[in-house]
Amino acid sequence: MCRFICYRGPEILLSNVLSKPTNSLIRQSFKAKERTEPLNGDGFGIGWYAPKITSTPCVFASITPAWNNQNLRRLSEHVRSTCFFAHVRAASPGMRVSEANCHPFQYGPYLWMHNGIIRDFSRIKRRLRASLPDRLYHMIDGTTDSEHAFAVFLNLLGDDDHVCSVRKIGQALVKTITQLEEWTAQAGVSDVSYYNFAVTDGQNVAAVRYVSDPAIEPQSLYYSTGGKYECSREGVCSFCKCGEAEKTIVIASERLTENPGDWFRVAPNHVLMVESDLTANVELMDFERIGSRINGKAPSASTRAQLAGHL
Amino acid sequence: MCRFICYRGPEILLSNVLSKPTNSLIRQSFKAKERTEPLNGDGFGIGWYAPKITSTPCVFASITPAWNNQNLRRLSEHVRSTCFFAHVRAASPGMRVSEANCHPFQYGPYLWMHNGIIRDFSRIKRRLRASLPDRLYHMIDGTTDSEHAFAVFLNLLGDDDHVCSVRKIGQALVKTITQLEEWTAQAGVSDVSYYNFAVTDGQNVAAVRYVSDPAIEPQSLYYSTGGKYECSREGVCSFCKCGEAEKTIVIASERLTENPGDWFRVAPNHVLMVESDLTANVELMDFERIGSRINGKAPSASTRAQLAGHL
Amino acid sequence: MCRFICYRGPEILLSNVLSKPTNSLIRQSFKAKERTEPLNGDGFGIGWYAPKITSTPCVFASITPAWNNQNLRRLSEHVRSTCFFAHVRAASPGMRVSEANCHPFQYGPYLWMHNGIIRDFSRIKRRLRASLPDRLYHMIDGTTDSEHAFAVFLNLLGDDDHVCSVRKIGQALVKTITQLEEWTAQAGVSDVSYYNFAVTDGQNVAAVRYVSDPAIEPQSLYYSTGGKYECSREGVCSFCKCGEAEKTIVIASERLTENPGDWFRVAPNHVLMVESDLTANVELMDFERIGSRINGKAPSASTRAQLAGHL
Amino acid sequence: MCRFICYRGPEILLSNVLSKPTNSLIRQSFKAKERTEPLNGDGFGIGWYAPKITSTPCVFASITPAWNNQNLRRLSEHVRSTCFFAHVRAASPGMRVSEANCHPFQYGPYLWMHNGIIRDFSRIKRRLRASLPDRLYHMIDGTTDSEHAFAVFLNLLGDDDHVCSVRKIGQALVKTITQLEEWTAQAGVSDVSYYNFAVTDGQNVAAVRYVSDPAIEPQSLYYSTGGKYECSREGVCSFCKCGEAEKTIVIASERLTENPGDWFRVAPNHVLMVESDLTANVELMDFERIGSRINGKAPSASTRAQLAGHL
Repeated sequence: MCRFICYRGPEILLSNVLSKPTNSLIRQSFKAKERTEPLNGDGFGIGWYAPKITSTPCVFASITPAWNNQNLRRLSEHVRSTCFFAHVRAASPGMRVSEANCHPFQYGPYLWMHNGIIRDFSRIKRRLRASLPDRLYHMIDGTTDSEHAFAVFLNLLGDDDHVCSVRKIGQALVKTITQLEEWTAQAGVSDVSYYNFAVTDGQNVAAVRYVSDPAIEPQSLYYSTGGKYECSREGVCSFCKCGEAEKTIVIASERLTENPGDWFRVAPNHVLMVESDLTANVELMDFERIGSRINGKAPSASTRAQLAGHL
Repeated sequence: MCRFICYRGPEILLSNVLSKPTNSLIRQSFKAKERTEPLNGDGFGIGWYAPKITSTPCVFASITPAWNNQNLRRLSEHVRSTCFFAHVRAASPGMRVSEANCHPFQYGPYLWMHNGIIRDFSRIKRRLRASLPDRLYHMIDGTTDSEHAFAVFLNLLGDDDHVCSVRKIGQALVKTITQLEEWTAQAGVSDVSYYNFAVTDGQNVAAVRYVSDPAIEPQSLYYSTGGKYECSREGVCSFCKCGEAEKTIVIASERLTENPGDWFRVAPNHVLMVESDLTANVELMDFERIGSRINGKAPSASTRAQLAGHL
Repeated sequence: MCRFICYRGPEILLSNVLSKPTNSLIRQSFKAKERTEPLNGDGFGIGWYAPKITSTPCVFASITPAWNNQNLRRLSEHVRSTCFFAHVRAASPGMRVSEANCHPFQYGPYLWMHNGIIRDFSRIKRRLRASLPDRLYHMIDGTTDSEHAFAVFLNLLGDDDHVCSVRKIGQALVKTITQLEEWTAQAGVSDVSYYNFAVTDGQNVAAVRYVSDPAIEPQSLYYSTGGKYECSREGVCSFCKCGEAEKTIVIASERLTENPGDWFRVAPNHVLMVESDLTANVELMDFERIGSRINGKAPSASTRAQLAGHL
Repeated sequence: MCRFICYRGPEILLSNVLSKPTNSLIRQSFKAKERTEPLNGDGFGIGWYAPKITSTPCVFASITPAWNNQNLRRLSEHVRSTCFFAHVRAASPGMRVSEANCHPFQYGPYLWMHNGIIRDFSRIKRRLRASLPDRLYHMIDGTTDSEHAFAVFLNLLGDDDHVCSVRKIGQALVKTITQLEEWTAQAGVSDVSYYNFAVTDGQNVAAVRYVSDPAIEPQSLYYSTGGKYECSREGVCSFCKCGEAEKTIVIASERLTENPGDWFRVAPNHVLMVESDLTANVELMDFERIGSRINGKAPSASTRAQLAGHL
């Protein structure tokens, strides 16, 4: 079910999150700690913004594992960015390993990643595709549930996609999950789906941690924030206490560094929203209504309290 | 627009058509003679039958060019078959190069290849997919017009797909083109489409040479038949005059060998049908009706005569 | 440090060892049981003999992991052989992942695989290469210690390499390790090297289990023998009790099936030799002399007894 | 025998030379104009400097053709540099297509490319390798004559490789060819070798156009210089007449743009040297002495005049 990271802050070298930390994303490609299966070796992708050149991000993806890809290693030592996504994939059974199926997916200024699975996706695929306007229908180049979810998100976000607030993006994320859950429920799918999505336009970043069954723990998701994030030559990485001027936020499936105090767990059903000025909010979104409407039952008060307590 | 070959006859080594002839398929991957653009370097695929093991063919495909692929070279020197397809691809503009987009496509006992293009395919893609039953809808793993046409073919061939005569297969080929042309015309596409398809179930082989505008020459297509097809150590390949017992037929986008007398051009709008006993027929199928119905004009008598004269 | 298997017996489908057993080689590519690190995801290779076609084996190799390679999956369901090798690689640190570095390596009728590492190989590389005649010097196409060891083996085997008894092959294996150990010792390398090699000419198979320090357990190596090896539709694989006519031997880094009684551990420093009539012997070869000569100390009697007890 | 380009000047987007010009390097990957064989489809590589990050260049290489590689397309639209090399490969017969064999080769701050062939390279390979110190011997990761020539160059350049003038680099280029020619002659190779090399440390650039037989035309090599090199949205690329402040030099196997007046042919046996301040010189180096010493004959005066006249 993959692992991913999002970086937003002062310009840093990609290797600072991809390879240098003790639990770097490349390490998570073969030794993830918070999945039953530690392996995420079915290709990878990175996407970064170079705003002085263009608003469209650059994507580099490959079907070989992240841990032995020399192009990735060299790029991560030579590319700096203020905003980048990276993803190591564990393909769902039956899903082809191909560059078209590597995350992050890109459309215009947007990047999109998914850690999770839309269960029995084939049962909603036709309906999902039917809902899409041509420009999004034909954007889809691979076969993953994740890329299809991206198209739903873009559709729900609306046409004026170039001046979005992070709140609008976060709401579209919630609507996307609501829509997918509605279709899945109507198709009679009872297995649990996992929806950890992350999306950015290069300025705003939103990420959600959601599982369709409130009784089940969603896939892990953390964030960390502070001053500039730096790695020493010895590979010790941390956020400096250097004030607001260099504010930074990292969102990751797993904690990249050892110090547990540096990382906060995103609570289940919550959306983390980072504005272009790096202001971050974690909110319990209106998912409960989704659950109650679709499954005919609302989470109990104790469940809600428990969820809130996670933060 | 690709090049392909089909072999049906006594068991031979794949290299006898893939690499040994002077104009072998691997040579056609970089020096095709009968295309304006000689290059077919966007991946390749081979599919062969091992009927003692299973009725489902084995497919080997790769996104690297055929001319420098060492796995292909070695396989073609070690695999023998009585029926095999091979294809070198020239991707249509905008079409991704991926293994999922390499021909031949396989479904159950069938292999399918295409040399050509369905013009403005995106304008009929939704309608085409909507026509498919679930099993064929979800079979599609790539993004090519060619694989989608295969799904249409399988749908028109019907469910009892395990006991097909070559005539039934040929008719389904014609119906497939009729259907694609009808959709394309209704979508207002006026550019010319090219439909050289080949299909086999391991016993029967059918191939068609068709272009949507009768005034235009379709993509080249040849066949050759005789006794056992053999290559000397020096790479001189020919059909021996050894009688019916070892009857062989090769269908190819281009003549593989120098002797022009060995090869017959498939006439435009004709379907070549090879039965399981290697009996072969080339027939002018009922495409004219398609043309007249859809484009509102029938080919003139002289066009018809001209077409017939090609054979 | 890789995992491998060798099969020799009646013609079977490759999938019977590659994918069907509970601990198949493909499973070992991501969940090896007897290595500290369960991952062997740095490419793979298979080599098989088709003696009716040629004495040279066919090799198929790829840099992508074995577990998600669709060409491998299809080939293993369509190719049958009486003798084949397969290998999943865990690249040594700093070693490039490339097809040229995938095992098995092939030269003439021979296939060669290695599970292990020649420690500080760069310190003996020049000397090793200087020892080779031109034909073997230029055979080397990659950068691994394993392929270089193959060249040493071929050189020690001698020129008349087409009529080798398994005993001669086994002795050349021993001489190869002796030579490598001598060079390594003279270069002052003190770290432990692991030499589990397997080699075949399509008829005879030899495999060795050796580690340079007798106090340390070598990499695991097993063999199993019996009548024809078969897998049921449910994936239960076993050797039938059907007599000598269908005698079979499988050599593997790990036991492929659950029944521990089916598998014998190859004792440290022993060579397993399978003749063309499938007669198999495991012998304690003259490695002790190597050790005593080079390291200046002979293994104690108790060590020797312990080794023998492994069998 | 490949095609390459070198760019040195104000920071520009890589696509300005890789894809936008009418005869861009990507176009040369399938339609080179000045080679008998227009195809350079055996992989490619790019290397660029990001001096604010590190003095070591970033290299991205792939075994798939440049014309259909989406990672290359995206990188070239997002990476800007003041100094970069790019190369599309036509592998010499028998040479493996692998990432390790893609140009440019990198070592420390240096990038190296070759368009040509050292004839019968295997006959000098041992001697060449024997001449190398360990650090360069073990640097070699592939099997090409080109990478081995790079190691010879680095050896002749000397140890103090961080403060080189372009003159010193140019002289090392000449010495490299002299040395290779000497070895080749002594090995009794009589076929013609082609040595168009380009090398840079990110500041200085040197390129040479040489063929071992003065009676034969070397591989084509051009340079162009002027103010900033720009491409319009319509793909019209040219050097602006904007003065010394934005001085630029492009060296390429073929002219990238239509205007023949923009491009100068590098004369045979000449070395083009670009200093860090973009001052460029083309000099007839002391190759004649090489020829006379090795082949026992000096080029005639008329040959010399003819060579000079090329400039």
